[in-house]
Amino acid sequence: MKKHSGLDGPGATPAPVHEFVLIDSDKAPQDWRIDSRQLGIEIAKPFSVNLRTLHGGRQEGVSLIDIDNGAMTITVVPTRGMNVLRAVADDVRLGWDSPVAEVVNPAFIERDARAGLGWLEGFNELVTRCGYEWIGHPGVDNGELLSLHGRVSNIPASRVVLSIDSKPPHTIRLRGELKEQAFKKVDFAISSELSTEPGSLGFDLDDTLTNRGDYPREYQALYHNNFGTPLLEQGARFVAPVRQVSPFNERARGELAEWQSYRGPTEGYDETVYNLIPYGDALGESLAVLHNRAGDRGVAVAFDIAQLPVFSLWKNTDTERQGYVTGLEPGTSFAYNRRFQRSLGLVPTIGPREQRRFQLGFRLLADQADVEQALQRIDEIQAGRPTEVRETPLVDLGGV
Amino acid sequence: MKKHSGLDGPGATPAPVHEFVLIDSDKAPQDWRIDSRQLGIEIAKPFSVNLRTLHGGRQEGVSLIDIDNGAMTITVVPTRGMNVLRAVADDVRLGWDSPVAEVVNPAFIERDARAGLGWLEGFNELVTRCGYEWIGHPGVDNGELLSLHGRVSNIPASRVVLSIDSKPPHTIRLRGELKEQAFKKVDFAISSELSTEPGSLGFDLDDTLTNRGDYPREYQALYHNNFGTPLLEQGARFVAPVRQVSPFNERARGELAEWQSYRGPTEGYDETVYNLIPYGDALGESLAVLHNRAGDRGVAVAFDIAQLPVFSLWKNTDTERQGYVTGLEPGTSFAYNRRFQRSLGLVPTIGPREQRRFQLGFRLLADQADVEQALQRIDEIQAGRPTEVRETPLVDLGGV
Amino acid sequence: MKKHSGLDGPGATPAPVHEFVLIDSDKAPQDWRIDSRQLGIEIAKPFSVNLRTLHGGRQEGVSLIDIDNGAMTITVVPTRGMNVLRAVADDVRLGWDSPVAEVVNPAFIERDARAGLGWLEGFNELVTRCGYEWIGHPGVDNGELLSLHGRVSNIPASRVVLSIDSKPPHTIRLRGELKEQAFKKVDFAISSELSTEPGSLGFDLDDTLTNRGDYPREYQALYHNNFGTPLLEQGARFVAPVRQVSPFNERARGELAEWQSYRGPTEGYDETVYNLIPYGDALGESLAVLHNRAGDRGVAVAFDIAQLPVFSLWKNTDTERQGYVTGLEPGTSFAYNRRFQRSLGLVPTIGPREQRRFQLGFRLLADQADVEQALQRIDEIQAGRPTEVRETPLVDLGGV
Repeated sequence: MKKHSGLDGPGATPAPVHEFVLIDSDKAPQDWRIDSRQLGIEIAKPFSVNLRTLHGGRQEGVSLIDIDNGAMTITVVPTRGMNVLRAVADDVRLGWDSPVAEVVNPAFIERDARAGLGWLEGFNELVTRCGYEWIGHPGVDNGELLSLHGRVSNIPASRVVLSIDSKPPHTIRLRGELKEQAFKKVDFAISSELSTEPGSLGFDLDDTLTNRGDYPREYQALYHNNFGTPLLEQGARFVAPVRQVSPFNERARGELAEWQSYRGPTEGYDETVYNLIPYGDALGESLAVLHNRAGDRGVAVAFDIAQLPVFSLWKNTDTERQGYVTGLEPGTSFAYNRRFQRSLGLVPTIGPREQRRFQLGFRLLADQADVEQALQRIDEIQAGRPTEVRETPLVDLGGV
Repeated sequence: MKKHSGLDGPGATPAPVHEFVLIDSDKAPQDWRIDSRQLGIEIAKPFSVNLRTLHGGRQEGVSLIDIDNGAMTITVVPTRGMNVLRAVADDVRLGWDSPVAEVVNPAFIERDARAGLGWLEGFNELVTRCGYEWIGHPGVDNGELLSLHGRVSNIPASRVVLSIDSKPPHTIRLRGELKEQAFKKVDFAISSELSTEPGSLGFDLDDTLTNRGDYPREYQALYHNNFGTPLLEQGARFVAPVRQVSPFNERARGELAEWQSYRGPTEGYDETVYNLIPYGDALGESLAVLHNRAGDRGVAVAFDIAQLPVFSLWKNTDTERQGYVTGLEPGTSFAYNRRFQRSLGLVPTIGPREQRRFQLGFRLLADQADVEQALQRIDEIQAGRPTEVRETPLVDLGGV
Repeated sequence: MKKHSGLDGPGATPAPVHEFVLIDSDKAPQDWRIDSRQLGIEIAKPFSVNLRTLHGGRQEGVSLIDIDNGAMTITVVPTRGMNVLRAVADDVRLGWDSPVAEVVNPAFIERDARAGLGWLEGFNELVTRCGYEWIGHPGVDNGELLSLHGRVSNIPASRVVLSIDSKPPHTIRLRGELKEQAFKKVDFAISSELSTEPGSLGFDLDDTLTNRGDYPREYQALYHNNFGTPLLEQGARFVAPVRQVSPFNERARGELAEWQSYRGPTEGYDETVYNLIPYGDALGESLAVLHNRAGDRGVAVAFDIAQLPVFSLWKNTDTERQGYVTGLEPGTSFAYNRRFQRSLGLVPTIGPREQRRFQLGFRLLADQADVEQALQRIDEIQAGRPTEVRETPLVDLGGV
């Protein structure tokens, strides 16, 4: 994970960039394409960026931006909170097969429907942003139904800008602004940036949440990063440097012994969730890995425990058609309803004009060497420190 | 009612067809028109198909497809679950005058609003599909508010294809795909087909519901077929082969003796509903007829009791501006909330990858001979079998 | 305030007008502009009207119409109930700075969310129409959650026509039709007209509510007219001819003594609301003025107490970023939930085919003379009649 400063170094002049406004208040999203050749960039693996709009069904009017960096094609959905739909490199796909086949326009989502589970009618991405007013399971808090995982994934980006560095490595950056606003309630602005380098097998997210208001506000963030086949399979494993693991609920408690390993698609499995408190290195960086059974393919998700101190491991190893998927989800908070998390200290506050930054890195581990290197990095972060396996869920949901 | 196989006969080669994709993921609905002359089809009554998009108000972006078969113009709303807005032949209109004047884009519908009656803000079609997760009056079932009559009428079709047979009778078919999906909850695909023959005074619907998921799911279907003037009038009659008729509630019980006849527009009437269990012929085919007082105009709705075993007769003979309309509604279930229908055996289940087919035929009865022929057909289906008139509603709603 | 008859006088021929249909069922809103020069109108202060569409974020597809009358630019939002976003003349802006920065498309508004406060996610206009089925704070009435301030601001206009008189003073009129419809529930049509004269520092609204149905219906209307800086500031004052003033709730009671004066932006202030019953002149005309501390700038809102008999004074003098704003809100009703207002006689009924007219005039008071003249007019309306200062709120909200 790189922490972009936008500068090449202290005191340096920003590198000149090619910049393209793709969506803005006076610019409707329109079919559009640019490639490295058109930019006069000679490069071993030519890259391109493509904007297109979907039609029909509940995806009418949804825009997609495909960033083909020459090695991996990353598809971003500006219409849905700048979520990342999928990232594909050769025969490996980061992402999953949700029964939700369409990329659903938020105009058709009723968040409060299904007793607050309306969000599920649009859930199918690789990276689904959750937050930022709240995250977690639906339920009433302070007299108001909080719908599942907040509003941000159903907020279209209000300004989307593509920039490509003129100088090697010609980093490609896609920025989108998200406004999470309601009079008297909230005035959050989220500046999201996805960046990738031509030829690389990964991408970084760099989000900045700003409380534009004059009052401190509670907030929560969770990055619902979802992986299905081919990485997820029977015998696939999850590895991370972990200080504490505990079952989300009684259901998960029964499988605590096998929390790091995955079942194949299992009829009637539904889901188990484990609450992790990860370790970070001296700088706060942490890493979570999902790898296949053979250990020769995987994905590494880097994050910063100072920004995202807890981690939900969501094991939804039900049948393929039901959605065979695991979530590697760093967050400020676990997936409980917000009302349960204040006493855990997991409903942070953001002061007036304050900012919070959330940075994540996604890297495809393409072979055994990649996987081993990532696991070794995790070992280094763990640094021999103990992992507490806590039998009791942190929240007593009353057996639910 | 024809049961289309898509083949001219056993072992036959499908007839060559002219096929046009009107809406698809990469094809926005655009103004478009084709007619028989352009297709080189010489025919006594030339036909045409026209796609147009509505603007302004809550109908912004709604597409309509007018199929003028030379004798009848059938208007389909792909944006609203492939519903049929109306069918007009000369001076007879199948359909009704709802106070809802616009064809409302589902983006503006909040189903759960009005205590689950949000659906009423868009209700004005001749054929309104209800289902397929649930139908019926709003109410809480399994801890979740089920809004009136389900989601499908507020789901835009995701792929719409027009095909016209090259060979006589040059059948015109309009197919639309509907996706009723929510992660963990449902993965239904509905393939709907409306077909009509040039010069005919009717059309057929042939819908196939597929449970794409790996689990059995409850489902319900109801075809809310609605008719106002000129067929509905004081003294108009409803006729069908009926095994059992019972009042929906106490209100309807009081008028049980006159369940087959209609009042004129009646101030303060609101509605009465009768629950019918129809008879079918040896193949399961049944027929319901609404005809005017003179018995020289009417409509016949054909259906299959193996597919749609029960029938709601909705008599909303209130004033014209309030909506003077009757519904001839074959369904898997009555219009009670789902929670009342399990004990009636009217909440069927569809297994993984299973399909259910719903076929309906609509024929305008243009003169006395047409009406008499339809009534004779009903007589043949009834075949002297008795009609039980049940005084007590099937569900005790507590006097509501 | 002029009461437009559309005629120059009794028996006169209507003046020829230039008329342009900007939005209709077969006419999508498209970028468009007309100006006085194009119309061949020679005038000291040339005027223009401009239609444009916003993109990105939750304002995707929202149309704005800017009427620059040569002295003031008035921006109307047909997509949001023909609301007036702002009116700007030189360095004075009528309107306010809401934390809601976008002009939100109703397709993205879920009214019932936030326990019925979903409306707040789009609230940022100078004139926000409230009604017409209900207005007021969210709450359950007759078994149904009434969301804040009704539906009309989230209903797009279905037909928008611009007309410009050929003859001096070349009055510019923008009419929009709003349909507030739901089967069995309501069939309201609102014909709204905004008019302004070239070179003037104000505009008039002339709305006609028609109950198109056959039954009497309850209705409520409130014009949420909102003003922030530069008119609103510490020491700014509100003046109107008042028969009775009372605090909306216990919170407001504590500041009853200073109900006519404004604080500067005040951290933690939230809001106070005062319920006024205004006096009118012999014809029912009344006038409310907000002026700045120096008394050399202000705004006058004219209305008719026969049409809008009560008045909410909303003092939201919280911090600037929270929304520093005051509402001068004539209405049929106060801002309580509808269930509290029947006993106050403030839930009127509109009979079948009946109409109600709501006329308002907005005038910028550009200098001390303008302010003094307006205050004098208020004095004339008050005509020495007493003002009852009622200590107790009209509704006992139980200390809330």
